Amino acid sequence: LLAVGDELLEGRYADSNSAELARLLGELGVEVARIAVEGDDERTLAARIVELCAAHELVIATGGLGPTLDDITREAAARAAGVELVDDECARADLGAWFERRGVPMPQINLRQIRIPRGSTLVRNPVGTAPGFALPIGHALFVSLPGPPHEMRHVWDESVRALVAARLAAPLGRARLYLFGLSESRFAEIAGARMQRGADPEIGVTASDGRLSVLVTARVRGIGDAAAELDARARAAADALAAELAPHVYSRDEGRLELLVARELAARGAKVAVAESCTGGLLAGALTSVPGISASFERGWIVYANAAKTSELGVPAELIAKHGAVSAEVAEALASGAAARAGAQLALSTTGIAGPSEGSAEKPVGTVWFGVHWRGTTRTQLLRFPPGDRERVRRCATNAALHLALTALRGSS
Amino acid sequence: LLAVGDELLEGRYADSNSAELARLLGELGVEVARIAVEGDDERTLAARIVELCAAHELVIATGGLGPTLDDITREAAARAAGVELVDDECARADLGAWFERRGVPMPQINLRQIRIPRGSTLVRNPVGTAPGFALPIGHALFVSLPGPPHEMRHVWDESVRALVAARLAAPLGRARLYLFGLSESRFAEIAGARMQRGADPEIGVTASDGRLSVLVTARVRGIGDAAAELDARARAAADALAAELAPHVYSRDEGRLELLVARELAARGAKVAVAESCTGGLLAGALTSVPGISASFERGWIVYANAAKTSELGVPAELIAKHGAVSAEVAEALASGAAARAGAQLALSTTGIAGPSEGSAEKPVGTVWFGVHWRGTTRTQLLRFPPGDRERVRRCATNAALHLALTALRGSS
Repeated sequence: LLAVGDELLEGRYADSNSAELARLLGELGVEVARIAVEGDDERTLAARIVELCAAHELVIATGGLGPTLDDITREAAARAAGVELVDDECARADLGAWFERRGVPMPQINLRQIRIPRGSTLVRNPVGTAPGFALPIGHALFVSLPGPPHEMRHVWDESVRALVAARLAAPLGRARLYLFGLSESRFAEIAGARMQRGADPEIGVTASDGRLSVLVTARVRGIGDAAAELDARARAAADALAAELAPHVYSRDEGRLELLVARELAARGAKVAVAESCTGGLLAGALTSVPGISASFERGWIVYANAAKTSELGVPAELIAKHGAVSAEVAEALASGAAARAGAQLALSTTGIAGPSEGSAEKPVGTVWFGVHWRGTTRTQLLRFPPGDRERVRRCATNAALHLALTALRGSS
Repeated sequence: LLAVGDELLEGRYADSNSAELARLLGELGVEVARIAVEGDDERTLAARIVELCAAHELVIATGGLGPTLDDITREAAARAAGVELVDDECARADLGAWFERRGVPMPQINLRQIRIPRGSTLVRNPVGTAPGFALPIGHALFVSLPGPPHEMRHVWDESVRALVAARLAAPLGRARLYLFGLSESRFAEIAGARMQRGADPEIGVTASDGRLSVLVTARVRGIGDAAAELDARARAAADALAAELAPHVYSRDEGRLELLVARELAARGAKVAVAESCTGGLLAGALTSVPGISASFERGWIVYANAAKTSELGVPAELIAKHGAVSAEVAEALASGAAARAGAQLALSTTGIAGPSEGSAEKPVGTVWFGVHWRGTTRTQLLRFPPGDRERVRRCATNAALHLALTALRGSS
């Protein structure tokens, strides 16, 4: 993979396109051997294209297809292949139509974008002005795609996936698991040799604020392995792992806790309310990221100050004075109060110490109490997150609250 | 820059370390010529290190320093330099102390991490188990840093910045501007040739959910350019640009709107409350990301349902029936209601259509009304964001609310 642009070398953006392409190629069973990022210099880029095409079967470049003079991927590819640039009439028609739809005249400079190396296949781009192209260079296929991530993804879905699959795809089987409350290193200990490169099936894991996303991949061992058999092998390995880690597995097909909670709520016709202290709005923000959540979520409170806990949700001031705001008692009173005031069957509360300061020996930074009210019963839970990063403590606490909600909803059937 | 790890080639993570390092190196005036991402294969990695060290003055690698067998940066660097790995006693002492502080015995496998190539300088890592090292290879300096982003950043700040500055830094002048409410392409039109590579001073811009972060860089033209003169040149160019774009400039030194709002609140001893509909908690979440905000922020409401707007904040049901929930009238009533109920001088409200559906011809997806109450007066503002991405509409609306708050606070002196 080759990402092109001075803005990447200057650190103004991270190269997210290559990671996205690597993931998409992985779904086709195509392994990425290396990723290179190059600046907007035509000769240097041409040399890199030659080098990459000599060593690999497929080279996919993103970026450098805009209309301005510092967009040089077209020229560099032509130089690498030893061909000239030619106007593509299909690209001309697409570009004309693009500006016509917007009711603005096409600037002359955009005509640079209809030039592609002779011998290329055009990769049409209906969502931008930059078409891509696919060009054989030596034994490799060089594919140039637009840099804006949504354009890259659009042309991948529309045409490039099929082009790559036809040339390179190896059949493989896939199965997934989503876990909560297990560290990545503990997972690695349990999965052991199954995570080694080349293991069959091979297990990969990604951690994100308390969640683990596990991917099990089965590859072809010999000629004649059917696709169904590969899937069955991946699923069997995932089943075995799920059995070992049962209490942590919360889904086989969807990692977003807020989406799973929203689905369970919708299935039960139940409503949810939130009373947030340390998460400060992030829990409501996660729930309201789900389109259509307004059927299940009507209101929430951010009760940062003790007086707000009392006046908005009826937490007795004496309770706070006696146990402190970060306590099981206050977490319970917040959740019950929110459920009662909102008329919701489910209510979630958080109260904790996100940091960086204000921790104590008894309640260090990272201490969070959760309250989960579900149909008349309120349970509480204490969790301690690693201190040191206020936002990470808040994000982990948000996910933990969602996971507790999911457990409560599912336990009720 | 060289990022090491199969997880990067598989697209499980994007290479954020290289972008961060490119930005940090840019601050020292050091230009990044290329970025390479390699997998966990010792021989391939060693060959790449040799190639990069032959072509560049400095090569900084991140990742591959963990304790497990697939962490092979130490071995690859030793192979590239033609030296052996030796135990480092300082690393041994640091590692022992690290486990002792946690009260757990050190697993034998972690001893791999105290081995560094002979001739290296140890880069101590107080926040993790993986020390880095700096090793001359040919004419280049090869620096290996731990992969976890917070560890990488910590050792950069502690020691690597100074190491690199002593070897390579070119003096340059810097000035910044932060703008709101201007598109990146409109900015590029105005800045024109000043954004071209090699312009002096050169202007760069990064967009993020409605904010633009502008960096003006002046470089040495000839021997004897003093650092103060470079700064003055950058500042003069930033001043000229700020004059052209005056209504959009909100800061010269800090881009985080929530932090600027928090500072203005603290300076005035004022309190803020929020009443969120379409932003659904993200506005409170942004404010509460600022440590110490509890002195200024006590409570907020997420009033998604119309009934919640009425019962929590006193918005008359007839007002909603007459004008619709997404209206100036309701935005105003939400902000005034939140200010009154919270006893806050400043109150912010949002009500809009984040999408993906539920828009109309009159109020398309992306329509958001804002209310800003400040010391007895409530103003409203309508903004329309590009539809199509629910989360982007919500993030842009959050920043817009913060920008309106900042304008109100500053206008009051």
